[in-house]
Amino acid sequence: MGTEGASVEISEPLLVSETQQIKPVEEEPEQQIPEWKDQITIRGLAVSALLGTLFCIITHKLNLTVGIIPSLNVGAGATELKGCEDLGFMGLALCSNCNTLAEIAGVGRGVCWVNGLLVKQRMSLTQINMTKAPEAQHPVKAFGWAATDQSGHLSPLNFSRRATGDEDVRFKVLYCGICHSDLHSIKNEWGFSTYPLVPGHEIVGEVTEVGSKVNKVKVGDKVGVGCMVGACHSCEQCNNDLENYCPKMILTYNSIYHDGTITYGGFSDTMVANEHYIVRFPENLPLEAGAPLLCAGITVYSPLKYFGFAQPGKHIGVVGLGGLGHVAVKFAKAFGAKVTVISTSTSKKDEALEHLGADSFLVSRDADQIQDAMNTMDGIIDTVSAVHPLLPLISLLKSHGTLVMVGAPDKPLELPVPPLIVGRKMVAGSAIGGMKETQEMIDFAAKHNITADIEVISMDYVNTAMERLAKGDVRYRFRYQRWKHLGCY
Amino acid sequence: MGTEGASVEISEPLLVSETQQIKPVEEEPEQQIPEWKDQITIRGLAVSALLGTLFCIITHKLNLTVGIIPSLNVGAGATELKGCEDLGFMGLALCSNCNTLAEIAGVGRGVCWVNGLLVKQRMSLTQINMTKAPEAQHPVKAFGWAATDQSGHLSPLNFSRRATGDEDVRFKVLYCGICHSDLHSIKNEWGFSTYPLVPGHEIVGEVTEVGSKVNKVKVGDKVGVGCMVGACHSCEQCNNDLENYCPKMILTYNSIYHDGTITYGGFSDTMVANEHYIVRFPENLPLEAGAPLLCAGITVYSPLKYFGFAQPGKHIGVVGLGGLGHVAVKFAKAFGAKVTVISTSTSKKDEALEHLGADSFLVSRDADQIQDAMNTMDGIIDTVSAVHPLLPLISLLKSHGTLVMVGAPDKPLELPVPPLIVGRKMVAGSAIGGMKETQEMIDFAAKHNITADIEVISMDYVNTAMERLAKGDVRYRFRYQRWKHLGCY
Repeated sequence: MGTEGASVEISEPLLVSETQQIKPVEEEPEQQIPEWKDQITIRGLAVSALLGTLFCIITHKLNLTVGIIPSLNVGAGATELKGCEDLGFMGLALCSNCNTLAEIAGVGRGVCWVNGLLVKQRMSLTQINMTKAPEAQHPVKAFGWAATDQSGHLSPLNFSRRATGDEDVRFKVLYCGICHSDLHSIKNEWGFSTYPLVPGHEIVGEVTEVGSKVNKVKVGDKVGVGCMVGACHSCEQCNNDLENYCPKMILTYNSIYHDGTITYGGFSDTMVANEHYIVRFPENLPLEAGAPLLCAGITVYSPLKYFGFAQPGKHIGVVGLGGLGHVAVKFAKAFGAKVTVISTSTSKKDEALEHLGADSFLVSRDADQIQDAMNTMDGIIDTVSAVHPLLPLISLLKSHGTLVMVGAPDKPLELPVPPLIVGRKMVAGSAIGGMKETQEMIDFAAKHNITADIEVISMDYVNTAMERLAKGDVRYRFRYQRWKHLGCY
Repeated sequence: MGTEGASVEISEPLLVSETQQIKPVEEEPEQQIPEWKDQITIRGLAVSALLGTLFCIITHKLNLTVGIIPSLNVGAGATELKGCEDLGFMGLALCSNCNTLAEIAGVGRGVCWVNGLLVKQRMSLTQINMTKAPEAQHPVKAFGWAATDQSGHLSPLNFSRRATGDEDVRFKVLYCGICHSDLHSIKNEWGFSTYPLVPGHEIVGEVTEVGSKVNKVKVGDKVGVGCMVGACHSCEQCNNDLENYCPKMILTYNSIYHDGTITYGGFSDTMVANEHYIVRFPENLPLEAGAPLLCAGITVYSPLKYFGFAQPGKHIGVVGLGGLGHVAVKFAKAFGAKVTVISTSTSKKDEALEHLGADSFLVSRDADQIQDAMNTMDGIIDTVSAVHPLLPLISLLKSHGTLVMVGAPDKPLELPVPPLIVGRKMVAGSAIGGMKETQEMIDFAAKHNITADIEVISMDYVNTAMERLAKGDVRYRFRYQRWKHLGCY
């Protein structure tokens, strides 16, 4: 649990080149790791949940409509905690008086949603009570970088991972992408972070051990793990290879695994996952540049397929040229579609047309360009997570076209209904993809030489990288240095 | 052109019983009919369009993005006028500074849209210049009830209809439904009304004459005409039997026909239309109660089919139980779906369950009911044209479900994006249906004994009916008298 261990045990969390030296950080991690209690205090959780509920009731002055929350966006972990769930304090509370939704979580929190979007946390967080400290929960020692509070500062953490089960694959982490959701999570901006939190869900590495029933891979294979590591495997979604839409889907980090322990992500030296959630990496797909495909890649690949955009002759718009957008252009081009990049300025034009091979570039504020392109697109992949007008995008669609949102703005967007009606147009959402489709995507990427454009950094640079991510102006500087993996919701 | 003629020449515009006496109105219609000039002043139109454009530019302080407007929602007529279109003054203008869309119309109007929704007219209307007065445009005399200004007051009007062309069907109008869009149109609430305006697009009657090339119907047949009477018949939409999405679709009234004259609706004694736009009424389908299906029926039938809701085993929600909603319930039930009516109060519960045969009734403000129904619906048909929250409706959808908007609120709705993403859900729009599908719908309705629940009124009651329609409380009184055809967008 010391910084000395960092340069020895950790492999390459983040997109770090193997030759780069991992520098020790200045902080003393021992002082930042909280003390853990030895008992889950179910009663305490229930009481705190009740308090959270009451707080929101008082704050919002009813009427409360309590329902089960979708696990992906408001913390699968919280809803999985036994006791609280039984007591019915989990879920979504709709206050029709003030048009506010409140998540009533069972871990001593009351998190407020307005119109489905998390805006801020209304109650102070309390440390979740675990059965054991992260270091002692499992038999296999692990080392990673974790946030321990809402500052989001990452520091070394000794924790543990489970022994390799019959269906498990263990691998040495070689690279892990930084997704913007990592930043949201370490700072608890979505309101359901539990600390210590080890982020990272674009994890690639080399298999070191496989369980007795594993057929998919063998020791030495290159593999990856994306945004999820578990689901119920019995619901309609799971039966249709759509584990990503399973109500009990388990996120790769900050979620509660089947055994009741918190999941930890890829900012660590080792990873273990059920083989169902292991993605085989073809030999010719570079690990470091392929890693972001596990989140950004599947996030755009899946809607391109599902909504019928993945065909020659289709005209596809891509809004925003960040981590998701630049990969969307590559996939859409590989599918044979005509691709138009839509941006607010011309600054990315050369990169779009010359580097990424887009067919055209549209400045959304240019009158002539918008006029020329109206009613010409079969579909649009919108990767922008900032609040932005939908009407110009809807107007670019042909009749029966679909605007697919894969970035999640933190406030509701204005939806004009008549333009949808007159063209039978649609606004849809899409979240990553199932494991079968994720493997298909990786194989397709390998076949068509599709990778993300990345900047490899060393582990000790991670806090600086996060700071740069957090600042708006940083995002644009990244642009000139090729994309990092930003913009994932 | 006198009130004396009313009781003689007019048959039964509106839902009027044949035994009812049409009373003469007090107004002198001659005084309300404006004088018409003998020349289309193309140059004048272009100049006024330019002035309109400049006005909006000044009002909105640019940046203007000018594009072609979809014809259905902002006045097909205007965009069809030659001269102005050529000069490029027609279209949609997006001001990115103030996030405002302006329709730059070419008939001396500057109509302002905010986020795609017409909110108010910024410039005074000028009377459109016609080649001839409505009475003298065509050889066949016609009589109807028209609005002559924004007051929306309907009064008798002598006008004319074209001679029966080779492909035309002429019929005596027996009944015509009142749609809420009639009210919007006579009061120019959508900003593109041209006066005199004869409303009505749920027109049924008996064929009196057919052209030499007409095969579809013969004299004496019962027929109907819905919302449209023309399209280009050469575009992708038309080639796919989707004339309703043709950019050059011609509305049944307040639109410009192929010959350059204004179209007049079904509040008249006689109607003529190309046989392509004639719907055959099966013998067993009552004319008066079948008439509203030509707008309300196809408006809900088409999305039920297109979005895959029209199947046994599907669970379909219907929001709002007005003209569209009650027909949606009947069709969805006939398709074998489980139907849940969603309303803001229990007042319509008995009607929904007992009269219409809905399977369940959901009060959208009842916490327990919402909780129980979350993630249970395959699709929802939302007929509400008032501003309302989408989040509760989206939460009722299963993953991959679709919320279809067929009512058009006059302001943008708040769209929370994360709930769409986590369930790959969709919000779509849908507008009436093509002629092939409209005939299919009428045949299906006849087969399954589906009609609209109506209140038959006499012609002289129309202004009172419109006044009742215009008042919010009237809408609910209609409810207790069975539905009128309200709520059509």
